[in-house]
Amino acid sequence: MPTIVLYIASSIDGYIARPDGSVDWLSVVDGFDTDYGYQAFYDSVDALLMGSNTYAQVQQFGDWPYTGKTAYVFSSRDWSDTLADVKIAPPDVGATLPAIKHYHKVWLVGGAALVKSFHEAGLIDEYIISIIPVVLGDGIALFQSPLTEQPLKLLSAQHYASGLVQLHYQKYHP
Amino acid sequence: MPTIVLYIASSIDGYIARPDGSVDWLSVVDGFDTDYGYQAFYDSVDALLMGSNTYAQVQQFGDWPYTGKTAYVFSSRDWSDTLADVKIAPPDVGATLPAIKHYHKVWLVGGAALVKSFHEAGLIDEYIISIIPVVLGDGIALFQSPLTEQPLKLLSAQHYASGLVQLHYQKYHP
Repeated sequence: MPTIVLYIASSIDGYIARPDGSVDWLSVVDGFDTDYGYQAFYDSVDALLMGSNTYAQVQQFGDWPYTGKTAYVFSSRDWSDTLADVKIAPPDVGATLPAIKHYHKVWLVGGAALVKSFHEAGLIDEYIISIIPVVLGDGIALFQSPLTEQPLKLLSAQHYASGLVQLHYQKYHP
Repeated sequence: MPTIVLYIASSIDGYIARPDGSVDWLSVVDGFDTDYGYQAFYDSVDALLMGSNTYAQVQQFGDWPYTGKTAYVFSSRDWSDTLADVKIAPPDVGATLPAIKHYHKVWLVGGAALVKSFHEAGLIDEYIISIIPVVLGDGIALFQSPLTEQPLKLLSAQHYASGLVQLHYQKYHP
């Protein structure tokens, strides 16, 4: 099995989006002459995993940014016209595991429902959370309760001039 | 007015206690030969602010640890037998502000309802959050939605061998 890495941005109060899904508030960390390690992380992954809302949202942002890496979109919707590198996977996470087992490292992009499925199945090996310096107040929670309790091991904590703090945890096996 | 500082521990998923109020999970960061700056912080404050559940819980832990500093307990309950340094304050936060205005720095201890009251009133000057390396999965959220959106300025981010990360933010006035 590949190393499955959740790599995502969150507000201080744990939201990945406003209630309507918008992520405009992420822009407070733009323009600081750093990509917060994004390109190096992206180059290190073989494939992407995402939910259907995330897939739809990324397409709204403009050109598909992940050309050349297979993106598995977990969805029960009928997507008649998917992009070349996109594979629609059934919402049952377990059914897709055989298809991704030859990868070395995959990026769990989001959203919250898919994070919950992977967390509950014990499949997230690393959690890389970039905390944006804002209390958003409401929105879509990264961690949707109830979840199984999971101790994590801190691998690194990096902070940046913008106030972003990137926490890198590994699943802890006591 | 004093500087009001929220100083509290949270799980990675934003809980300050389990659903039943227990905080046993905090002990994963015990025994690492550090107090994470607690004594220095405690020495720097003149008074404490807490809700009635927090007050009751601290008493259950044993001897009252805050002797010598006035603790304001925001509560509508009838506390017939309070400790010498404890003052019962009405739940309406604003009514107590005149009584604390001569302090230099006060510690907002918790719990979540009081944090919400102070946050909504724009009264929290600094947020010091110690993130314990565990996804708890469920519990009492530090930030109870909905809250007013508040950008914060990161003052420092310190990590420790135990995996605890202490984030120190200041209220940001754009």
